Order: sequence, then C-alpha cells, then structure tokens
Amino acid sequence: MKLPISFTDVAAAAGRIAGVAHRTPVLASRTANARAGAAVHFKCENLQRAGAFKFRGAYNALAQFTPEQRRAGALAFSSGNHAQAVALAARLLGIRAAIVMPQDAPQSKLSATRDYGAELILYDRYREDREALAGRIAAERGMTVVPPYDHPQVMAGQGTAALELFEDAGPLDALLVCVGGGGLISGCATAARHLNSACRVIGVEPAAGNDVQRSLAQGRIVRIEVPQTIADGAQTTHAGAFTFPVIQALVDEVVTVTDDALVRTMRFFAERMKLVVEPTGCLAAAALLEGVVKLPDARIGVIVSGGNVDLGRYAALLAQA
Amino acid sequence: MKLPISFTDVAAAAGRIAGVAHRTPVLASRTANARAGAAVHFKCENLQRAGAFKFRGAYNALAQFTPEQRRAGALAFSSGNHAQAVALAARLLGIRAAIVMPQDAPQSKLSATRDYGAELILYDRYREDREALAGRIAAERGMTVVPPYDHPQVMAGQGTAALELFEDAGPLDALLVCVGGGGLISGCATAARHLNSACRVIGVEPAAGNDVQRSLAQGRIVRIEVPQTIADGAQTTHAGAFTFPVIQALVDEVVTVTDDALVRTMRFFAERMKLVVEPTGCLAAAALLEGVVKLPDARIGVIVSGGNVDLGRYAALLAQA
Repeated sequence: MKLPISFTDVAAAAGRIAGVAHRTPVLASRTANARAGAAVHFKCENLQRAGAFKFRGAYNALAQFTPEQRRAGALAFSSGNHAQAVALAARLLGIRAAIVMPQDAPQSKLSATRDYGAELILYDRYREDREALAGRIAAERGMTVVPPYDHPQVMAGQGTAALELFEDAGPLDALLVCVGGGGLISGCATAARHLNSACRVIGVEPAAGNDVQRSLAQGRIVRIEVPQTIADGAQTTHAGAFTFPVIQALVDEVVTVTDDALVRTMRFFAERMKLVVEPTGCLAAAALLEGVVKLPDARIGVIVSGGNVDLGRYAALLAQA
Repeated sequence: MKLPISFTDVAAAAGRIAGVAHRTPVLASRTANARAGAAVHFKCENLQRAGAFKFRGAYNALAQFTPEQRRAGALAFSSGNHAQAVALAARLLGIRAAIVMPQDAPQSKLSATRDYGAELILYDRYREDREALAGRIAAERGMTVVPPYDHPQVMAGQGTAALELFEDAGPLDALLVCVGGGGLISGCATAARHLNSACRVIGVEPAAGNDVQRSLAQGRIVRIEVPQTIADGAQTTHAGAFTFPVIQALVDEVVTVTDDALVRTMRFFAERMKLVVEPTGCLAAAALLEGVVKLPDARIGVIVSGGNVDLGRYAALLAQA
C-alpha cells in the first residue's frame, strides 16, 4: 500500500524550512546515559521557534499554498502549540492567519497567538463545536484549514526533526517519539526508517490515553474519551486517517507512561539538563528514563517535543516532592 | 604591560577542551531581539558539562598538569560550580581530586561532587578558614590547588566560551559577561578583543556587590564584604591579581543589575527560551533586557554562565509574581 508520505516529502520539507526553522541542538546527558545504559541523543524541539516542533509542519504546509490560498489566508483550530506555529509561519510568509481558540484559553496563549499577528476567533467551548465553526468560517472566507496533525504536508514537516537528529547524531538504533494524533511520529518514522531500516521506532503515549497503542493491537483506529493527563499535547481521542497507516507500517510498538513519570522526567530535564520541557515533551524521555523501554548499549534518539507550559503550573510541578 | 594571558592561550585552551567540553549552542529569541532593539546571541553555558562554564577553565588547567602533579592530584575549595568542574575534569583525566566544601553545603551539591568521584573534605565554615585548610592539605599531600578564577590557565579556558560564540555567531559589536572574581570576563575579553578590536566588552555585577565596578573607578582592587545577592556565583569580595589587570586593559565598563531584575530574567529564560538559568547566569542578559545597557542595532553576544540552582529554590523564584 502506498503511504501518504515518503522520505522524499520529508527531504523536500527540510529544504523549505532551512534557514527559517531553528536547527535545534542535540544534547546529551551523562546521567541519562547511565540510567538508560545506552547512548541517548535528545533532539530539543522545546528550543524550536514558538517552543515546539509544530512550527516545522505548519511552515511546510503554508509554504506550499498557491497564490490564491495565500490571498485568502490560513485557518487553524487549536488551543495549543499548533495555533502559535501556524500564526508564526503565516506571519513569516506574509499570509493572513485566523486561529479558532476557546474564549477561556489561558491569557498567555491568547496573547502569544495575537502577538504573532494572527486574528483570534474565540468561541464558547461548552456551547459551540470548534470544527464546525472553523469549517464554516473557512468556507465563508475561502481560507485553507491547516489541521494539527492529519495532513501529509504537516506530517512531512514534523519528520524533519528526525532527519536532523540522524544527521547530527549519526545512525541510530532506536527512536522514541511522543504520540498524540500521530503527526510527529509518522513523519519521524518515515525519516528514521529510510535512514536506517533497522531503526526501532517506539511511540510513547500517556497511560490514560493509549488509543494508538490499542489501535495498533486492533488494527483499526480506536476512539477514546478525552484522556485525563497532564500531557495536554497528547489529549487526542484518536489517530488520523493519514497518520495511522504510517504508524501501522513503520512504528514497532507504542508504550505508555504515567503522569507521575512525566513529572519526574520534567524535574530531570530541569535539574540535569537545564531545559524547560512541557509534560507532553517528557513522554519519550520518560519511557527510557523510567525503564519502560530497555535497549542496553543502543544508540537512541529521543524527541523532546516542546517546552510551552504556564510558568506557575511549571513551578508547581517542579515543587512536587 | 604584558597581561597574564593572551589570545594564544585561549586558542591553545580551545584545542585542549575540543571534544571534551560541550560546544554549547548559541540561541536567539525574537522577544529578546525586540526588547533590546538588537540582534542578541546567547551562548548557553548552562548547557555545558557540569552545568556551567567552569568546566572549561578547570579542564584547561588540569590538562596541563605534569606527570608528578597528576600523581599527587588536584585540590579545589568551592561550594559552587567550580567544585563540580574540577571533580569532573579530574575524573576525565584520571587525576585524583579533593574538594574542600562546607559541611552544611546543600546535600545535592555534596552528592553531585561525590558522584564525579572526588574526595570531599568537609569543614565547619563558622570555625575554620577554608583557604588555610586547603593550603595545609595541599602541602601535606603535595596536591596542586586549582583556584576558581585567579589563575591564567583557568582564565584562558573560560575565554573559549567567547571564542566559540564569535565562531558561531559571527563578529560581534558587543559582549556582555557576568563578573564574579573575573575569571570568565578576563578570558572572554581576551578572545573578543582579539577577534574584533572594536568589540565593546561589558561586565555585569549584582548591584549589591559592585566591587569590580568600583575597582575600575579607583584603579585598584577594592575589597567588599560578602555581598547579599541571589547571584551566589558572584558573591566574591574582590577581583584577582591576575584577572584585574586584564579587566582594566580590555573591559570597557562594568554595570550592575538588581536581584529583582535577575528574577525577571530567570523567568524570561524559562518562559521564552525554555532554559533553566541560575541567578548568576542571568546577570549579563538582565543588563540588556532591563535596559541598563542600550546598544541599538548592534550584534550582541551574551554569556549565559550556568544553570545550577536547587530545584525547590528555582520553583519558588519562578512562582514569584
């Protein structure tokens, strides 16, 4: 079966984002290596523009707009990292952007998105359906919707994180990637398996929301209720029609970690690596540091997906004993 | 007058630490650029091994030990970043290290230093003089004392941070560096002024401990009481006999920032750049972000000196409104 994206798409995305996205550093930690009994390479997408890998996919999609699409603009619905990524990418490309966000979203996220020059469209999330609202506005204005993960250009863009990691760290035996809707892992698996067909690609979900793990077991997309987890970037209810076939074809397994493990990993990143990582960004590392995944003596890549977390909440999580 | 170090010493140090010290990333921030009205390049020594620039100088000094010095070992007195830097450098070079630390130092610092394989020599800081104690032990055992800043090899090693920053960011119009005993700024000024003789080198001290600023004004080393500031890495009472002449010759000015400015800057680093930076590491950036130093349209380098801060204290500082 032909998959929705190939390595060629990831390589083309890398060309589009070159000099625009940050080439984020790959960092190591003696303590992490000792704990994993392996050589661990952390790809720090928390240091990416707008604070998360999402900028890669958003920019790759927007850069391919036709002149007509550019004139009408881009529309996204998100209360998270994708919103800011689309807003920033649109601004850099001179495209108008509108972001549909819940009116009770944190003030910091509203103002960050507005700071990037996007129009905010606020809705009442208890009374309105955001997808219906976004679809209606997009239709009225002729705007192009940029989905947060289930879109080949977005997936290919996210895969550039793994491509750069392989380029900078050398060939890897395994790659650990967090899983929400599957945009990041589908792109990264596409890059990793092309660069080393023997590379083991492992997805990591929050224990409370293991829909993709279950989907792989059942061979079909399983839908769950919105999971209760501090990993807000992985509070997705199901994989996508584009992402799931790629995950089925290229991902070896999906494991889960608890919220407690995420907090300990967040503390590890702050204390040992001096990095602010949001809970979702801790998923992949937690699987390794907490011993859920054991790959002795392997060369392991870990994607640290983002660092956007409200400071007050972050301080409270760090202060937990 | 011949200065105690030259650019040749810094370049030689760069050769010694190559492949051993991390080549730390140089990061940028749209927000920082907007606030400074300039292009700001942050050299992230909080991501250095052992969490601070100190590893550069310690390794450069220990790598030059004679066979006899190696056999007898290295001794350092410090309760801060220098202790861990010497312990780690010694371990990597197969040299025995003893660190004199106060017995009531934070448990995390004691165990981190012990983890690096160093012998801990604890003393009662209310009843014993650490320099006298260290000198006596060094004499008894024939060990070589590695001072935290006032030592040409240590100073030259620290200068490699500026050398790398110029290599990675291109020529800079100005360089901002925190000032404690002057080890970092003397090395960095030596590198910067060689690479661009017009580069303006600006030191930044805590407002409560501006001994170097006063020393420059008076043309002699001024001694002060231990300053009350959260910048514990800059709680020095006076510049060194080796560092001060270099500062006099190559540093344009020294400015000061308040502890409140340091806390705001620490929050900026966490929120906008996803970096954990200790209070001392915020000094140079604070001068720029708080408008103490204004250099419109300049290309500015800022050394972020370290990230070692107790997590509980860090969380408390972040949570301050």
